[in-house]
Amino acid sequence: MEPPSAPQYVVGVDYGTLSGRAVVVRVSDGAELGSGVFDYPHAVMTENLPPGAARHVSLGMDWALQVPHDYRLVLAHAVPAAIRDAGIDPAHVIGIGTDFTACTMIPTLADGTPMNELAGFADRPHAYVKLWRHHAAQPQADRINDLARARGEAWLPRYGGLISAEWEFAKGLQLLEEDPEIYDAMDHWVEAADWIVWQLTGNYVRNACTAGYKGLLQDGSYPSADFLAALNPDFADFIATKVDHSIGRLGEAAGTLSAEAASWTGLPQGIVVAVGNVDAHVTAPAARAAAPGQMLAIMGTSTCHVMNGNGLREVPGMCGVVDGGIIDGLWGYEAGQSGVGDIFGWFVNNGVPPKYHDDAVARGLGVHEYLTELAASQAIGQHGLIALDWHSGNRSVLVDHELSGVVVGQTLASKPEDTYRALLEATAFGTRTIIEAFNGAGVPVTEFVVAGGLPKNKLLMQIYADVIGLPLRTISSAQAPALGSAIHAAVAAGAYSDVQGASDAMGAEPADVYEPIPENVAAYNALFEEYTSLHDYFGRGANEVMHRLKAIQKRALSARPAEDPKAVKTTMGALA
Amino acid sequence: MEPPSAPQYVVGVDYGTLSGRAVVVRVSDGAELGSGVFDYPHAVMTENLPPGAARHVSLGMDWALQVPHDYRLVLAHAVPAAIRDAGIDPAHVIGIGTDFTACTMIPTLADGTPMNELAGFADRPHAYVKLWRHHAAQPQADRINDLARARGEAWLPRYGGLISAEWEFAKGLQLLEEDPEIYDAMDHWVEAADWIVWQLTGNYVRNACTAGYKGLLQDGSYPSADFLAALNPDFADFIATKVDHSIGRLGEAAGTLSAEAASWTGLPQGIVVAVGNVDAHVTAPAARAAAPGQMLAIMGTSTCHVMNGNGLREVPGMCGVVDGGIIDGLWGYEAGQSGVGDIFGWFVNNGVPPKYHDDAVARGLGVHEYLTELAASQAIGQHGLIALDWHSGNRSVLVDHELSGVVVGQTLASKPEDTYRALLEATAFGTRTIIEAFNGAGVPVTEFVVAGGLPKNKLLMQIYADVIGLPLRTISSAQAPALGSAIHAAVAAGAYSDVQGASDAMGAEPADVYEPIPENVAAYNALFEEYTSLHDYFGRGANEVMHRLKAIQKRALSARPAEDPKAVKTTMGALA
Repeated sequence: MEPPSAPQYVVGVDYGTLSGRAVVVRVSDGAELGSGVFDYPHAVMTENLPPGAARHVSLGMDWALQVPHDYRLVLAHAVPAAIRDAGIDPAHVIGIGTDFTACTMIPTLADGTPMNELAGFADRPHAYVKLWRHHAAQPQADRINDLARARGEAWLPRYGGLISAEWEFAKGLQLLEEDPEIYDAMDHWVEAADWIVWQLTGNYVRNACTAGYKGLLQDGSYPSADFLAALNPDFADFIATKVDHSIGRLGEAAGTLSAEAASWTGLPQGIVVAVGNVDAHVTAPAARAAAPGQMLAIMGTSTCHVMNGNGLREVPGMCGVVDGGIIDGLWGYEAGQSGVGDIFGWFVNNGVPPKYHDDAVARGLGVHEYLTELAASQAIGQHGLIALDWHSGNRSVLVDHELSGVVVGQTLASKPEDTYRALLEATAFGTRTIIEAFNGAGVPVTEFVVAGGLPKNKLLMQIYADVIGLPLRTISSAQAPALGSAIHAAVAAGAYSDVQGASDAMGAEPADVYEPIPENVAAYNALFEEYTSLHDYFGRGANEVMHRLKAIQKRALSARPAEDPKAVKTTMGALA
Repeated sequence: MEPPSAPQYVVGVDYGTLSGRAVVVRVSDGAELGSGVFDYPHAVMTENLPPGAARHVSLGMDWALQVPHDYRLVLAHAVPAAIRDAGIDPAHVIGIGTDFTACTMIPTLADGTPMNELAGFADRPHAYVKLWRHHAAQPQADRINDLARARGEAWLPRYGGLISAEWEFAKGLQLLEEDPEIYDAMDHWVEAADWIVWQLTGNYVRNACTAGYKGLLQDGSYPSADFLAALNPDFADFIATKVDHSIGRLGEAAGTLSAEAASWTGLPQGIVVAVGNVDAHVTAPAARAAAPGQMLAIMGTSTCHVMNGNGLREVPGMCGVVDGGIIDGLWGYEAGQSGVGDIFGWFVNNGVPPKYHDDAVARGLGVHEYLTELAASQAIGQHGLIALDWHSGNRSVLVDHELSGVVVGQTLASKPEDTYRALLEATAFGTRTIIEAFNGAGVPVTEFVVAGGLPKNKLLMQIYADVIGLPLRTISSAQAPALGSAIHAAVAAGAYSDVQGASDAMGAEPADVYEPIPENVAAYNALFEEYTSLHDYFGRGANEVMHRLKAIQKRALSARPAEDPKAVKTTMGALA
């Protein structure tokens, strides 16, 4: 129902890895009226600190930093651009909501000032934002996991048995151990998702989503000081002094827009600002996929799966389960596949011969589209291949980043489109493996909803429907996370009584629905059995060849003198 | 020692799959003085009979036929060309020897006339030569193997436990069952290796090599009439009426050059013609690799291994062991890898992206050479991969043509040169597996000699030396089989008392010698363990996934309507 007065709007801002995107949404029906985007000036820093830093500072392997002020600039550029694009009067905006990558962490003073903005800290890597894909805290994560397993910590099964190097504790412990001065000087170890809300409102509120999934907050408690002290005595008060803070539930207001933030955004001072949130999780209501049993897959370079359940279950190998982690009042489950579109892209870039590139150009197609067209003409199983989709490791169910890819069945007659299709199918089998883990743990999956960049590939979507044997729905919104943030803003502003209701009214329409085709389901059942036997053989300890190959690879690389590119000489002399 | 009179010469003629090549060789030292080549006008017929046949006749799947007269034309063209190229007086030629592909079979009348040359049979596929790679007798081979296993036939272990669809019995049974009229009309079922000698001399002599390896002649006996009758009652007298014939030992004379053959070749009537032989086996003396313990690998698209031993042992999965099968007086062992250079070629054609092709051109290199150069700069194990070399099945030790390729360990960082090197290594591991089977069966391999087209790749040769941990020698002759035939001619003519002595005097000089590098041997030992565990898992029944994938593939292909190339439609409609 349209309200009788002038239409009301909300703004959603989605903070991605390289840019922030703002969308103006009509409260009554979720119509997306305008958008604006702003690229972070410093993007992701993986080798050096920004040029303005006092001296040249190199970063280590697996580092990934950002500059907090880039996030403020999104408010000042993308939001006004979205308002202009929508052609609305900003006075009619009643709230703003945000979502962020996670776990992305900022060390701050008590007033929220990032440590890198302090005189004397600009040349210290640990003063900057540790982006979600900063992986240099793996040694700390390994210690946390080993200790938690040894002590039988009750929270560990809530994370499928393994916490990630990306999360708050591993990154915090790395900060303590590598730059204790900054660690001591910081007052808060803050999720970027909450820091941006702090910038908008002046209030620091920790959102329930990241506090649970990334901060290990379970049943109102964090890991104990005793546990932390066993990791490092100086880490004992990490929770008490750096982390613990009031929690905001998803869909609540964190506060109202400050005068300063109103001046950045051009939005009215005093409108409601929703509690922070995470890009994947906020997409569930945007996709009308927030009811128990509706699994939402955000499919792009990787896939993130989020789903609500009515109760708490321990799903083996999931990323996490958090009370109110997606929708307040439900248990939110998360899982993922670390390589999906990335694998297809790797294959197209590294494994497709010139003739295919030429033929694609001649047909006016991209190579992905051309391979898809060729693969689509095949009957299921015709290529004779089975692949494992672990080229970027396995995030769920095995939770093992040392696993790697496999292709079985190639012959002298195998064509690129055969392997391409086998890789598409492998990721579908990976999804089915996750769904079966959920079903087996008493969290039944009844519908599969897909957002992200991959749903435009119809063959891929039909393969997924056939492999998982469930109807599959894609969504029409091109800005699903920002729409999700806007939905949370509408709830926080009181336009809807809860996120589920707002999702029903404002969520995106389905784009396409793919029904499983019974004979295809049967054909894929046979191939899934083969996938599962290889999955278990390579992934569950029967043959640890992948781990050994990685260890051999690391030794081989570390043993090589860097200055000698021709390490292999034959006894017949160096190769020409 | 050069004889005091005018120098003497012999001619060797090597009959390959697509052409025949003649070489003129000096008897005293094996110097190759001239050569000539002639392409078979009808090449290999896999789809239709020659245009001259009375009506259009299509061949079935896996058929491969040739026209016998093409072989006579080699004598009339390649031999005179070689004499001209050498610039010698043909009156100084004292003998001619030949080698052939095998098992390549010709049905003939009592006088050696091929059945296809008879009026009324030119349009009958079964009247033609069944080339070695005619694989349409697989159903017959399966029945022969099943029955031999069930009856515990004593000859079966002489062939590693499995006979091939390529051999005399399977092809003969197919002829009987598919065209009994021709079967009844033929007087001899003749190896092409012996038919060409018959054309040269007018004498039919069965050579000991093919009679043993392809004709199942062991300890003077063939499979019993009782066994043959159990296959098919009409097959009971196959040996007695079509096959059995006097055997010529290798290095003996089969007869002398007839007036007609002298007129074709331009060689003196009455010179000695050596008993027929096989291309791989005749290469052993040419490579000075005919002593027990010297394993000769003829490496090209596939690899054939031949080696002499002092006694009879049963090597699991070998192709065969034959008394006098390579050198009269020794037991000749044969093994093989069905895909080697073919696998590298398949990868270069199907798995290497445009940039690599462009860069190779820019560097003035072929893609194989460019990938080899990139791979050569890697430390062993640096690529993190293990592959199985079964893209064309496994000929030895597993003897299973339904096996297929595997690559384990690919990540998003894997490059084409990584996979290329892993495939090179996989074939080396396959060779080591064969060598270990020989060592384990009491037929020790002490030296590895390589002929064929692949020895020019120095990286590949060094990898082989390092993987097998033995010195590896390549040979300088570009025409090794023809040289081997010439050596046999010299022995048959009495210039040397035996093939071993002739090999010492006339065999090719080593081109290169590769010594195993101890640290590389150690590094490859670790990777070979991984290869072996995967070899046994996929190849010895733990997981029959490859067989099931092939069965699924066959069903998928046979179930597809040929007129509908777009078999897969999505529920969203056909793909664009």
